[in-house]
Amino acid sequence: MQPWPRLGEEVAHHGDRTMVRRRYRRPDGGEAGFDITLHGETASVLALTNDGRVVLTRQFRPGPERVLLDLPGGFVDDGEDPTAAAARELREETGYAGDVRPAGRTTPNPYSTEVRHIFVATGCRRVEEPSTDVNEDVEVVLVSVAELRDLVRTDRLTVVDGTYLALDALGLL
Amino acid sequence: MQPWPRLGEEVAHHGDRTMVRRRYRRPDGGEAGFDITLHGETASVLALTNDGRVVLTRQFRPGPERVLLDLPGGFVDDGEDPTAAAARELREETGYAGDVRPAGRTTPNPYSTEVRHIFVATGCRRVEEPSTDVNEDVEVVLVSVAELRDLVRTDRLTVVDGTYLALDALGLL
Repeated sequence: MQPWPRLGEEVAHHGDRTMVRRRYRRPDGGEAGFDITLHGETASVLALTNDGRVVLTRQFRPGPERVLLDLPGGFVDDGEDPTAAAARELREETGYAGDVRPAGRTTPNPYSTEVRHIFVATGCRRVEEPSTDVNEDVEVVLVSVAELRDLVRTDRLTVVDGTYLALDALGLL
Repeated sequence: MQPWPRLGEEVAHHGDRTMVRRRYRRPDGGEAGFDITLHGETASVLALTNDGRVVLTRQFRPGPERVLLDLPGGFVDDGEDPTAAAARELREETGYAGDVRPAGRTTPNPYSTEVRHIFVATGCRRVEEPSTDVNEDVEVVLVSVAELRDLVRTDRLTVVDGTYLALDALGLL
């Protein structure tokens, strides 16, 4: 099976993110169209302290309209190395820093261009105050690995793919 | 920390999916606005045969523009029980049926209303031909659990959260 040839792409909506209409040639010769969200690459990090605590963030999420936990993370800036982005987001959102290394990546949505780069950070310690962003209102929460396993099983954290991938890379599953 | 009060919601774009602009009252008294994708609930199922094979689908995905594997699944119809939706999608996409039971759910995107219901199905066997959908062009692929573990680690499957959650529920991590 091969990728379908793209016939065209037009902007359908500009907002926080851009949505485009893409048209493809199907294998049977017909045409198919899909709305696709253009989305930058993101970097998320499972950060472990030397005493076995995981550094998470907690914030209000407007899609589900729930307060949820998350791995620290955010967009990779243009030209930025994803590992550097993970370290930067960890430091900005939580004030923690450690030894950051790649744990894999995921393609979480078939109708979005999003790629999630996942990292683990070990030996983490708090080195500064978190930066404040009035639109985020982020709290820092420390949990044990056993608590994290329970949180991903019970839908209280958004980056479930990245959390399992990072725990897998750390040999903690 | 509490959910932020919603001040309003206006449609920003209608297409395959609807995007709305939601406005909230921030805890500091200011206003925040977010583009949110309205998305139905979905159901995905990790289907195991009696000889330990996992039933996957493979298709071209227009967001990443790659051919990727996936757990069988799709939208839950209005008023449909998510377990019934998982069984229906498994049968339609792959022709397999088995004993379907819940394994959890995920909230994969902070800026979408999507909820993914995840299921495991055991004792699966092929009971009919898959239904054909010209816009999907789905292939059925059988892999071992060890191969599935490798596929999720190497970004060759889209529902990584659901796959890990289902393997966790089955005690296969």
